[in-house]
Amino acid sequence: MRRSLLAVLMLLPLFPHRSDAVEGMWQPHELPALANELAAAGFDGDPATFARLDAHPMNAIVSLGGCSASFVSPDGLIATNHHCVVGTIQFHSTAGRNLLRDGFIARTRGEELAGDPNARVFVTDRIVDVTGRVEVAIAEAGDGGEAIFRAAERAITGIVAECEAEGPYRCEVASFHGGASYRLIRQLEIRDVRLVQAPPESIGKYGGDIDNWMWPRHTGDFAFLRAYVGRDGKPAAHDRRNVPYRPASWLRVAGNGVSEGDFVMVVGYPGRTSRWRLADEFDEAATWSMPTGIRENRRLVEIIRHSTEGRPDAALRYASVVAGLENTIKNFEGQLEAFARRGTAAAKRAEEAAFLEWLAGAGRERERADVEALRQLVVESRARRARDWYVGWIAPPNAPVGARFNREGSVLAAALDLYRIAINRERPDPEREPGYQRRDEPRIRARLETFERRFDAKADRALLEHRIARYAALPSAERLPELDAWLGIGGDEPDLGPVRARLDALYRDSRLFDRAERLAWLDRDRAAIEASGDPALRFAVAVLPGLERIEREYREAAGRELRLRPAHLRALIAWRDSQGLPTYADANGTLRVTFGRVGGYRPRDGVEYLPFTTLAGVSAKATGEAPFDAPARQLEAIRAGAGARWRDPSLGDVPVNFLADLDITGGNSGSATLNARGELVGLIFDMTWDSVASNWRFDPAMTRSIHVDARYLGWVLSEIDGADALLKELGLAEPASRQPAVAPAPGTTR
Amino acid sequence: MRRSLLAVLMLLPLFPHRSDAVEGMWQPHELPALANELAAAGFDGDPATFARLDAHPMNAIVSLGGCSASFVSPDGLIATNHHCVVGTIQFHSTAGRNLLRDGFIARTRGEELAGDPNARVFVTDRIVDVTGRVEVAIAEAGDGGEAIFRAAERAITGIVAECEAEGPYRCEVASFHGGASYRLIRQLEIRDVRLVQAPPESIGKYGGDIDNWMWPRHTGDFAFLRAYVGRDGKPAAHDRRNVPYRPASWLRVAGNGVSEGDFVMVVGYPGRTSRWRLADEFDEAATWSMPTGIRENRRLVEIIRHSTEGRPDAALRYASVVAGLENTIKNFEGQLEAFARRGTAAAKRAEEAAFLEWLAGAGRERERADVEALRQLVVESRARRARDWYVGWIAPPNAPVGARFNREGSVLAAALDLYRIAINRERPDPEREPGYQRRDEPRIRARLETFERRFDAKADRALLEHRIARYAALPSAERLPELDAWLGIGGDEPDLGPVRARLDALYRDSRLFDRAERLAWLDRDRAAIEASGDPALRFAVAVLPGLERIEREYREAAGRELRLRPAHLRALIAWRDSQGLPTYADANGTLRVTFGRVGGYRPRDGVEYLPFTTLAGVSAKATGEAPFDAPARQLEAIRAGAGARWRDPSLGDVPVNFLADLDITGGNSGSATLNARGELVGLIFDMTWDSVASNWRFDPAMTRSIHVDARYLGWVLSEIDGADALLKELGLAEPASRQPAVAPAPGTTR
Repeated sequence: MRRSLLAVLMLLPLFPHRSDAVEGMWQPHELPALANELAAAGFDGDPATFARLDAHPMNAIVSLGGCSASFVSPDGLIATNHHCVVGTIQFHSTAGRNLLRDGFIARTRGEELAGDPNARVFVTDRIVDVTGRVEVAIAEAGDGGEAIFRAAERAITGIVAECEAEGPYRCEVASFHGGASYRLIRQLEIRDVRLVQAPPESIGKYGGDIDNWMWPRHTGDFAFLRAYVGRDGKPAAHDRRNVPYRPASWLRVAGNGVSEGDFVMVVGYPGRTSRWRLADEFDEAATWSMPTGIRENRRLVEIIRHSTEGRPDAALRYASVVAGLENTIKNFEGQLEAFARRGTAAAKRAEEAAFLEWLAGAGRERERADVEALRQLVVESRARRARDWYVGWIAPPNAPVGARFNREGSVLAAALDLYRIAINRERPDPEREPGYQRRDEPRIRARLETFERRFDAKADRALLEHRIARYAALPSAERLPELDAWLGIGGDEPDLGPVRARLDALYRDSRLFDRAERLAWLDRDRAAIEASGDPALRFAVAVLPGLERIEREYREAAGRELRLRPAHLRALIAWRDSQGLPTYADANGTLRVTFGRVGGYRPRDGVEYLPFTTLAGVSAKATGEAPFDAPARQLEAIRAGAGARWRDPSLGDVPVNFLADLDITGGNSGSATLNARGELVGLIFDMTWDSVASNWRFDPAMTRSIHVDARYLGWVLSEIDGADALLKELGLAEPASRQPAVAPAPGTTR
Repeated sequence: MRRSLLAVLMLLPLFPHRSDAVEGMWQPHELPALANELAAAGFDGDPATFARLDAHPMNAIVSLGGCSASFVSPDGLIATNHHCVVGTIQFHSTAGRNLLRDGFIARTRGEELAGDPNARVFVTDRIVDVTGRVEVAIAEAGDGGEAIFRAAERAITGIVAECEAEGPYRCEVASFHGGASYRLIRQLEIRDVRLVQAPPESIGKYGGDIDNWMWPRHTGDFAFLRAYVGRDGKPAAHDRRNVPYRPASWLRVAGNGVSEGDFVMVVGYPGRTSRWRLADEFDEAATWSMPTGIRENRRLVEIIRHSTEGRPDAALRYASVVAGLENTIKNFEGQLEAFARRGTAAAKRAEEAAFLEWLAGAGRERERADVEALRQLVVESRARRARDWYVGWIAPPNAPVGARFNREGSVLAAALDLYRIAINRERPDPEREPGYQRRDEPRIRARLETFERRFDAKADRALLEHRIARYAALPSAERLPELDAWLGIGGDEPDLGPVRARLDALYRDSRLFDRAERLAWLDRDRAAIEASGDPALRFAVAVLPGLERIEREYREAAGRELRLRPAHLRALIAWRDSQGLPTYADANGTLRVTFGRVGGYRPRDGVEYLPFTTLAGVSAKATGEAPFDAPARQLEAIRAGAGARWRDPSLGDVPVNFLADLDITGGNSGSATLNARGELVGLIFDMTWDSVASNWRFDPAMTRSIHVDARYLGWVLSEIDGADALLKELGLAEPASRQPAVAPAPGTTR
């Protein structure tokens, strides 16, 4: 009997959750159309909810700018990842009070740490389609790339200005599908953000760079902030009299955890994917950008390590920079390895060939020509790629991302900021360059104020010398005459002798290394800067014309792309439509929803990664040496079986991290992981190394997100931090005292 | 509906095979008593079969001396592991014809490679309990250890001599449970053993030392030999006119493979386990022997690598020696790591305390005293351990195993062999020392004949100098005056200057480096050797008295142990009986049966090792560099999907290796893995690194054996080797031509 029953069972889809991941980072308004897919994944609620930004759970989700987060109490308490608040923890740390190492817990609101001028909380409250208005501007702009770019920029700047005139909002227009649609996104920008709790790095970053992107994982990657606003309820600069922000809704932590096969979803702000790029763009990334990024970032890490050796204070200032570089290296390595293993290049080529064939078959010659013109644009950009990379340290925000490393920390970048803001202030605000408008001034000021937090003269100079050497190695025709002149070099393979004297003078004579001096320049005008003898400002004045020339080249190409890319994407969407495939937009840092199930995967032949790790694994990994230096009190608590109420009965232990098959990418970090009832069951903090190549081509079998289980969060707060007030605020106090006589409905203001 | 059915399913024991491994290496006669355990594991046949050595499948199982193997055709075809015949492959290789690298396949019987004098096949055909006779001898021997030892030795020599007088048998008396029982084992010794097939090392040792002991594994660790006998059917020395041996039965290869959860068993010759040793003996191994073995073996590998660098021919001669050393290093490292992780030392102590407490509670004071006396013996041996280790290179076969490394390859060991056999020949055979009796002479001759195959003068001298340096570093009181005198050294921290001249003379003047000279000395008597001026023989004559003194010390301790160890084991068995636990004997190189199921395990938190690997994994691991240098034609065959008939439908690919939860150890290598019908489904070739610590204390959750799947064997033979004749002989020809009109009953002679 048992034998035959088993035989029957084997035919059933016993592990539906072990099936392929659901591809797609959906915009909120797309969810209602995915009702079938949601139901198949195990969601039994109403998908229409997700289209409403003013309702639970969407209005509990926030952005920290680069990371995602969510409100988890009616008093503005925010849960996110530890690695998302490293900058803030670092800001509040000193050599004598190392909060990264020791962790932090505010036992009262008064103990919360305030004042990080870079900390922000953005609450998206409205998304409006503005495609028509931007498209008209682009269509009427004539044929030059620069003209198109400027027309689009003007249209967008106008839309943003109108939006921001409505109130204390930060507005932006995001481009989807490469410009096939544009959406205005309005966000409340909360500027008084305080640190409530962070575990020690030995919990919050347990496993460190070794375990980064890896499974099995045992990282307590969570932390808590609190949003404060003025007494009028409006965003305000930090002030002791500010009051906690009261969000319209917040997430409740699920009481019964999450299990293998459960439906889960993540609402957050994925940063950037490149799924619909051309095969040539893929090749460019796989054969040039990523290998270059790996090599160059490695070198930068070496330089920082070497120049801060034996000086822990200096090393601490570069800790998050180094973490970012190493993260990118490992990510790129993972992508390249997976590309090779999966034959991604050939697959991309084959897909593109099928697409072009379909266009030809459908008589869509015009679209074929657009795709070819776009391809040509990619090919042309190769001639500029080395220059764009190696002048990136002084280049505009739209330069290749790898090259914009640590602009904040360089005094030359600070001088350029000062000069550019002064120039732009001469214009009416709407005509200023993006990034140098009135709305951007607080952030520029914040960068200039916190400069020292990420600056060390020795490391800065070592990095600068390295960058100059790399730049000087470019053929002279690719270099900037203005920069060459300032450096005192010329010709191919120039003599770098004069550079040393120039840098000696810079580091000796510039007053911009002084905080007050730097900030004082923010209030001076263009003429004053141009008349200044400060070596850093002299650099800015001398080099800006060359930089502006590069930016014009960039705008010329970008403007042409603004017409071609939407044409490509619309054709691609039509082709996929013809096969019944929906086409979500590549990630662009805007609010998205992704859903799937809790479940493991098979990373290689003969091995399965199970969906949960447990406290036993924390102890098993502990070596006493960083990054496996779990605190002694944690190991003791595990040994003693403390915190049994957080245990999962089927695992027989407290779950630490779990895997799900969600389609996420960088920027999703800190997002709440929600169950089918919209309750918080964890925080997403990573994807597996096997997944990273999905940024270019989705692999349903290998793509898995990594989450910290809410029960581990509870365990750490109760057994390690003894954070009773915080647990109570989260609704996680000990059962006896946990339920108020009348429980507030989840997710509504009391 | 589906939901509730799934809910029911979750409550069922869906994966009964994921339960704990069944501990026990059972003697054939013990199987009938394990009927319940066998049935629980999925065996539905008659356990009494296994008690019959003259019936299928037991009489198809053979020993190669150190490895296990089995007959797989009525014409004496033998399947075993590739790594079990490396010595034979090496014997038939030359610098110009590298069979290790290229593999070998005999397309006709005439092409089979004959002549390796060390190759043997042993067929166990009778096991008789002789405990009474040995016990009486021990009991009547008085109290001195030497006397006890000699009495037991005499009794055993007599039993063996009687047995061997019966016919062309090799007989031995094996001690079980440390001497609580003795059994006479009679084996047919087949001496004409030919190489039929071996895959290239890039298949047979795919993954090499990196994958050794590891999962997931993709090693085609199989090879075929054929046993030949004289035309009269009796074992004979190699002769072209010999005919294939016709075994009484042979194993049939299972047609339908094996699946997760299936019952499997292995019959073979596990070498040595130490499960019932005292806690002090465990400590000795974990804190001294293994750490020393790791350190010393590493050094030997370095010396061999360094001294054969750039000379592939020389390196080839030491290939199997190096493989053995590295194997031991990795094994010891695995054991030490697991001991630490599992707290084995504390567990052994606690168990022993409970045992002693039980003895006390049961009033078994005599047995307690015996255990204490045995413990004292262990403590005493510590004083000799360093000396025993560092004189091991000239020491008798009963010295610590790590130290007897490569005795065959040393000219000094050869000289000692010559001298000892000459001395022993002066005595009547029954009074000769074990190892130097008439029955041992062919093996001594074989060692002397094949000396060069594993010898290189430069490496030999480098190893010898290293050993002498280690020996000389011992306190002078622990050294042998005879050896000191020969080396020309004395006192503590002696000057090694004189040694160089001694070795110069040895390597320059000894004629024993010449094969004919060496063999000629085998026919000369003691007086001739003692009169010889050959430096190697002068060494033997000078040092043997010292060596004999060490051996007497050893016999003195071993004799005392012959009384105490059985007492300890009998008491331990009684204690375990009182808890309802059966106590199998520690492995001792004799025929054993172990059974369990095909199944994976969880090596660490969040990871599961699946039971099967597949061809896809072979390709995924291929780098083109050894040891991941899968042959191009293999990769091409995998890409082309060749050999679909070997595929497992549920895996969707050809299985390569699989895991089972059998209790095995070194020596089991090459054993046939049998299904419940006694058909061959694979060959066991390894255990996982997580398992090796089970040699001291069984861990049911982590102990897994690694098998090469018979379907991969078939795939390689058909798709890579095109070995049609061999496949046909195995009953694995293409289905159309596979079934003879009247199929012979499996496992009986036609």
